[in-house]
Amino acid sequence: MASVTEAMEIIRRGADEILLEEALIKKLERGKPLRIKAGFDPTAPDLHLGHTVLINKLRQFQELGHEVMFLIGDFTAMIGDPTGKSATRPPLTRDEVLENAKTYEHQVFKILDAERTTVFFNSSWMGEMSAADMIQLAAKHTVARMLERDDFSKRYKGGQPISVHEFLYPLVQGYDSVAMKADVELGGTDQKFNLLVGRQLQEIYGQEPQVALTMPILEGLDGVQKMSKSLNNYVGIADHPDDMFGKIMSVSDDLMWRYYELLSFSPMAEINLLRQQVNEGLNPRDAKVRLAMELVERFHSKSAADKANENFVARFSKGAMPDEMPELTLVAGTDGMPLANLLKEAGLVSSTSEAFRMIKQGAVKINGERVDDKALVCEQGSDNIFQVGKRRFCKVRID
Amino acid sequence: MASVTEAMEIIRRGADEILLEEALIKKLERGKPLRIKAGFDPTAPDLHLGHTVLINKLRQFQELGHEVMFLIGDFTAMIGDPTGKSATRPPLTRDEVLENAKTYEHQVFKILDAERTTVFFNSSWMGEMSAADMIQLAAKHTVARMLERDDFSKRYKGGQPISVHEFLYPLVQGYDSVAMKADVELGGTDQKFNLLVGRQLQEIYGQEPQVALTMPILEGLDGVQKMSKSLNNYVGIADHPDDMFGKIMSVSDDLMWRYYELLSFSPMAEINLLRQQVNEGLNPRDAKVRLAMELVERFHSKSAADKANENFVARFSKGAMPDEMPELTLVAGTDGMPLANLLKEAGLVSSTSEAFRMIKQGAVKINGERVDDKALVCEQGSDNIFQVGKRRFCKVRID
Repeated sequence: MASVTEAMEIIRRGADEILLEEALIKKLERGKPLRIKAGFDPTAPDLHLGHTVLINKLRQFQELGHEVMFLIGDFTAMIGDPTGKSATRPPLTRDEVLENAKTYEHQVFKILDAERTTVFFNSSWMGEMSAADMIQLAAKHTVARMLERDDFSKRYKGGQPISVHEFLYPLVQGYDSVAMKADVELGGTDQKFNLLVGRQLQEIYGQEPQVALTMPILEGLDGVQKMSKSLNNYVGIADHPDDMFGKIMSVSDDLMWRYYELLSFSPMAEINLLRQQVNEGLNPRDAKVRLAMELVERFHSKSAADKANENFVARFSKGAMPDEMPELTLVAGTDGMPLANLLKEAGLVSSTSEAFRMIKQGAVKINGERVDDKALVCEQGSDNIFQVGKRRFCKVRID
Repeated sequence: MASVTEAMEIIRRGADEILLEEALIKKLERGKPLRIKAGFDPTAPDLHLGHTVLINKLRQFQELGHEVMFLIGDFTAMIGDPTGKSATRPPLTRDEVLENAKTYEHQVFKILDAERTTVFFNSSWMGEMSAADMIQLAAKHTVARMLERDDFSKRYKGGQPISVHEFLYPLVQGYDSVAMKADVELGGTDQKFNLLVGRQLQEIYGQEPQVALTMPILEGLDGVQKMSKSLNNYVGIADHPDDMFGKIMSVSDDLMWRYYELLSFSPMAEINLLRQQVNEGLNPRDAKVRLAMELVERFHSKSAADKANENFVARFSKGAMPDEMPELTLVAGTDGMPLANLLKEAGLVSSTSEAFRMIKQGAVKINGERVDDKALVCEQGSDNIFQVGKRRFCKVRID
């Protein structure tokens, strides 16, 4: 088993904040398995790599010998949007919750050790709670402290309505920690306030307060905005191996190292060595292939990863693509460069209007995939192979 | 049955605010009995005349043909003080609630017609409510609107803590109106905000919103501060007839007319006539006797009132008190005048130190009652008979 110092090094990897580190060290020093809590919203059970940042951290705790408590926050999901303002948040039924939970389990057990994971549903204690109990719980926190939460504070000052029930949700989440006797709770940086409510409630209920550990929000493939389905800059963990591989290969070098830290299971020492090799001349593309292989293997299999790699190479080299092609670097701002301009700059077309025409005809490909969107913008930091017609190729990096 | 105009005149008597008058008129015009709600705190079932201001208004509604719904707010009383900060608000048990309710009924049915009164306990619907229901209810109101309530606003700005559960109580009270389908809710002026929450919730729940009618807070015997047990300026409705009679006789003339408006069952026309008679020379003392008689009769009996009147007269006239005595008016500020100074000013003692000595010896009486408190302050507007020893009398009015 790892020493406390080694454990802390692993736990600190990629973490945004640990409140309080001393408390965590004290808990670790007791040498007993800790109860590690993380809550998930059962309304959106399709995970992408952004969600796995937290789950990877849970896995690290498991590898250090601790127990993971995977909480499905079904109680509030079954309430839906009680203000009735949002048609997009209908209440979930019990059956939907259970079905979503199965989907979750299927996905997270690709990362977590099922033997050391317990799945909890907060409806099992919150569903028993009466209105009187809820009032008692609400008495444990003040309005002023609630209004200190960033988003509440902004909305209150900005004159945007906050429904009273929104003050109850952090208390429900905090009470979950009491019911689960959590030692550590993990959450995104946006969850910090709620994790601290859990600490406070545990103290009030006579428990040793949990340690709050926040993980950063993962950037999407564009390297700028957070990874999200709605921004279409994500890698779903159920994505086809070829898509997953190709998407990882498309990220910038900087983002690759970020992904290595937060998504790879390789120890940091190995990653740092690889980075040094790249600095000394290794093609960053090789490092990217290694990361893409690791991720496809995790969510599919070793053979699927090998196949994805082969297909990727084949698409670009065998027959369809020349072994040698012009390579160039174009300079664009953080806004990136519109595809049509890029094609013209790269000499693949003579004008942007030709570019538009070729796109319309389906004659333009990026990394072997046909492009339909003539308004597509290529992001700063991306490195892709552009093709117009059968014979015009250029590998373009955007700085 | 009274016309709507007549009814409105009776309803307006002594009322602080009616929100909205038009809505009330509309409800009255339908000619059907209205459901009139008033809530009472079951922790303090000993009523004094201050509490009866509201109950008298309920009685007026009954006389106009409407149904009174007497709500015992036992749900929150059974929770007690959930912040655990106040040792003085222990939760009530179910048995205590029922016992207090009996005490209430015994008292209020001296004023209300039991046949046209239904007693409700809000635990009967709130006790069924789950935490999820409470959250749904809390979603019906915003934090910003809660913070508009006077006392919340002051506390928030003043940095005094407001527990989150305090935002839930107005919603519970408002929901009571929904459960009871109230047409009108009565409350003190300090209840205005809560009564309006009831209006709003009824609308959300698809009911016609109730009319909120606020009654002023009754001044105590001093004519300045609100009547309350802790200030010892009250007339308890269980007071001995002699005490009740004597206390009413001790109030200032101004306060007597205020009491007539809010406490007497005589129509305003009669009261205005009496007031005119006093202006034309009738001794205000006679008007006071009439009010004292009415109140003692209400809470005891006609014969008890007669007896109290006799006893009062006997204490002052037969043997103990001269038929004729000096009368004088002393001018004091709103702070009133210390008893010792008054006795000196009235020539009943030669110095304040003699006054203190006489008080200590038990030789000083006000309206025939021995005074023990040498620091007693006589209020502006009071009109009493002071006695030192067996023979020194003076009737003193303080302006």
